[in-house]
Amino acid sequence: MIKVTVWNENVHEKTNAKVAEVYPEGIHGAIAAGIAGDSFQIRTATQEQPEHGLTQEVLDDTDVLIWWGHKAHGEVADEIVNRVHQRVLDGMGLVVLHSGHFSKIFKKLMGTSCDLKWREAGEKERLWVVDPSHPIAEGIGQYFELEQEEMYGEHFDIPAPDELVFVSWFEGGEVFRSGCTYHRGQGRIFYFRPGHETYPTYYNENVLKVIANGVKWAAPVRTAKPVYGNAQPLEKLQAK
Amino acid sequence: MIKVTVWNENVHEKTNAKVAEVYPEGIHGAIAAGIAGDSFQIRTATQEQPEHGLTQEVLDDTDVLIWWGHKAHGEVADEIVNRVHQRVLDGMGLVVLHSGHFSKIFKKLMGTSCDLKWREAGEKERLWVVDPSHPIAEGIGQYFELEQEEMYGEHFDIPAPDELVFVSWFEGGEVFRSGCTYHRGQGRIFYFRPGHETYPTYYNENVLKVIANGVKWAAPVRTAKPVYGNAQPLEKLQAK
Amino acid sequence: MIKVTVWNENVHEKTNAKVAEVYPEGIHGAIAAGIAGDSFQIRTATQEQPEHGLTQEVLDDTDVLIWWGHKAHGEVADEIVNRVHQRVLDGMGLVVLHSGHFSKIFKKLMGTSCDLKWREAGEKERLWVVDPSHPIAEGIGQYFELEQEEMYGEHFDIPAPDELVFVSWFEGGEVFRSGCTYHRGQGRIFYFRPGHETYPTYYNENVLKVIANGVKWAAPVRTAKPVYGNAQPLEKLQAK
Amino acid sequence: MIKVTVWNENVHEKTNAKVAEVYPEGIHGAIAAGIAGDSFQIRTATQEQPEHGLTQEVLDDTDVLIWWGHKAHGEVADEIVNRVHQRVLDGMGLVVLHSGHFSKIFKKLMGTSCDLKWREAGEKERLWVVDPSHPIAEGIGQYFELEQEEMYGEHFDIPAPDELVFVSWFEGGEVFRSGCTYHRGQGRIFYFRPGHETYPTYYNENVLKVIANGVKWAAPVRTAKPVYGNAQPLEKLQAK
Repeated sequence: MIKVTVWNENVHEKTNAKVAEVYPEGIHGAIAAGIAGDSFQIRTATQEQPEHGLTQEVLDDTDVLIWWGHKAHGEVADEIVNRVHQRVLDGMGLVVLHSGHFSKIFKKLMGTSCDLKWREAGEKERLWVVDPSHPIAEGIGQYFELEQEEMYGEHFDIPAPDELVFVSWFEGGEVFRSGCTYHRGQGRIFYFRPGHETYPTYYNENVLKVIANGVKWAAPVRTAKPVYGNAQPLEKLQAK
Repeated sequence: MIKVTVWNENVHEKTNAKVAEVYPEGIHGAIAAGIAGDSFQIRTATQEQPEHGLTQEVLDDTDVLIWWGHKAHGEVADEIVNRVHQRVLDGMGLVVLHSGHFSKIFKKLMGTSCDLKWREAGEKERLWVVDPSHPIAEGIGQYFELEQEEMYGEHFDIPAPDELVFVSWFEGGEVFRSGCTYHRGQGRIFYFRPGHETYPTYYNENVLKVIANGVKWAAPVRTAKPVYGNAQPLEKLQAK
Repeated sequence: MIKVTVWNENVHEKTNAKVAEVYPEGIHGAIAAGIAGDSFQIRTATQEQPEHGLTQEVLDDTDVLIWWGHKAHGEVADEIVNRVHQRVLDGMGLVVLHSGHFSKIFKKLMGTSCDLKWREAGEKERLWVVDPSHPIAEGIGQYFELEQEEMYGEHFDIPAPDELVFVSWFEGGEVFRSGCTYHRGQGRIFYFRPGHETYPTYYNENVLKVIANGVKWAAPVRTAKPVYGNAQPLEKLQAK
Repeated sequence: MIKVTVWNENVHEKTNAKVAEVYPEGIHGAIAAGIAGDSFQIRTATQEQPEHGLTQEVLDDTDVLIWWGHKAHGEVADEIVNRVHQRVLDGMGLVVLHSGHFSKIFKKLMGTSCDLKWREAGEKERLWVVDPSHPIAEGIGQYFELEQEEMYGEHFDIPAPDELVFVSWFEGGEVFRSGCTYHRGQGRIFYFRPGHETYPTYYNENVLKVIANGVKWAAPVRTAKPVYGNAQPLEKLQAK
């Protein structure tokens, strides 16, 4: 059973009545409830908790971490970011959602600015599957639509993804690489675009299906821990 | 339960006493027995059977096809190759072993010559894991060795793999991209280098583990069948 | 100076008055004229010529081949396709345009069906640069528009491109990976989407700039011809 | 003409007599002299200079920065690292050599630990070309050898390279991805393995050829600066 920790900064929910209305249990609560049907063991954590709820113990007991943040990226402690970073390199899966593109942890793992275009206009988004062999697209039709979403547009300043699963079409004329996978160290990362806080995106069954698929895809595999540093030769060297 | 068909040309086993001694049940028999511990439903098929044992019914009932061929690549009927090709595009997994690099089906899927360097000198091969986040490397140490193998050396004329999992070191001075994954249509392909017919490679537990991992990785996912051809607009077009 | 051969099936121009009006010198003529400002040495070839104008001599004297075909893909002789294929593996660059996605040569190099969605409705296409570090995007803004084009939509059944340079937005609601690069053998391939025969696309300065950039990117580099086949060891092997 | 800045920490040369003997003009001096035949405009910079010789003015006037560091990575000021990072995202090419794998700038751009195995035993390295279509391999044979080098072995903790050009074979039994390319923002990065300070590696003509090729490959292209942030719709949105 995959152990999932759903992390949310949980700030909009407390400061914006509209968001509180859409997500009365918080975005983390909606996601946790929405993927509960799968065989996951789920907990949630939020930024206001001690150590942002991401103690070493919690992370060591997490197979896949889901990350939603936006307004308070800058207030996430570097020490916690470094701790999450190390856990990803050590094999923990990471699913970064929507505005998490600008989180410290995503930027640190990508090495780029992770900047993009955006617009809050409640426009239509249509996500097209461009890799129909990918497990993250399982159970999804050739595309799915979100009637109202924030627009994210190219250029998205990320490394070319190892695998590109979804590309979004926006009513206003933009496109976006919306489902991107990466391998980093022993860990795997899935970035998934949708999920502006004022829309009920995390109740959408396609969105929840993709997140659940992403969790399964990113779950750790028991590979050998790489050995680094000074190494004795495995073969006899010629004297020189 | 994943349905696996182990396909072997089964020619060396009948014409070369040494090979018959190493693989009395055929290479297909050794592989089928070797991965039987996993939760697979396994059958075998060989080239001398009607339609090479790969009727439409068999392929439709196969989740992952394992392919070993060498001496008789040219005698595989184009009709069967096309049938396997279509099944891969439709989602069947394909694990191509060793000299299968020169099979009609692998060349057709790669689009290149798939040529390489080779030498039969019974030398040592050491396979290094270069992607420790990959499920195909699960349960494998940082490297494993085969005391005697045929050498395959670069340049290996393949498209750059979507993911590179293993790189081989050879005693005689060459290197080789030994574990390569590809997505093609709805299907996924894993090429794995080891397995010369005169060595007991397919009894090696690391080799068998990698093949079993490859089967699991390549197993079909239930993604929507892509829709091609003429399409009506999803949005209202401006008159022009 | 890069030697370019612009190849066109040149069928629509002779059978469709509208196309003849748009391209009085043929699509090949328009492209040849349109990229003539760059330091290329350009010739054209068409399908009706002996050996489709692609004799061994012509191909040996070609650095980069540009390919436009549509209606008569099936009438291109396999022998010529194989000749072009070998030249690509030997280092000749190939720029495949628009409906060339379904040409024998492109399908052979890709290994997939190369199928896609399409619609002739004269709708707007907007091509976004998704890799602003790529030489093929040189001199192009963050996007450019074509007021009227045929729609090509995902899923496009190609291997994941080595590099994805452009993604198209279509008025009717689709997206498309419109600028894709591949390495095959010693050769490099650029697929570029626009160019339906009834629109003046090959007079558009952005389209021409991209094609010229693609030619420069795909031009052969003088790398060593790979050596294949049986190879002597470079290091002394241990006796066994 | 490409403007190249060769940067070297220049510490070993001053503290180790053996290194001073091999590189009397410093590693930067040897590289600058070694690639001078190409049409580059070259300057050098070293860590002990004010702002490590990498003022904003110098970086703004640099097309491609070559980086060699080892002993004093930790003493490179974060401010300078951030400045170089921004210039790479803005299009400056970066060629990272050998022990530069552990530099702050490379780790920041990769997002991983960049750790590896190593051994100083003066053993033989053989670098194989695995992508014979790549401009960085121009003029190089199918492989080249360095009689004595430090060993670097897998696992090398980097993101899978966008393109893998060289793989090294080591006498002691290891392999290494020795020539790796990356796109980051508008910039391109080439990592090249060889060059331990106690060996005359930077006088080797193959090594110098590869570095010069890397500089040409990484040279900036005049693409449009990406536009980020809030964006007005390009199409009329439906009222909702």
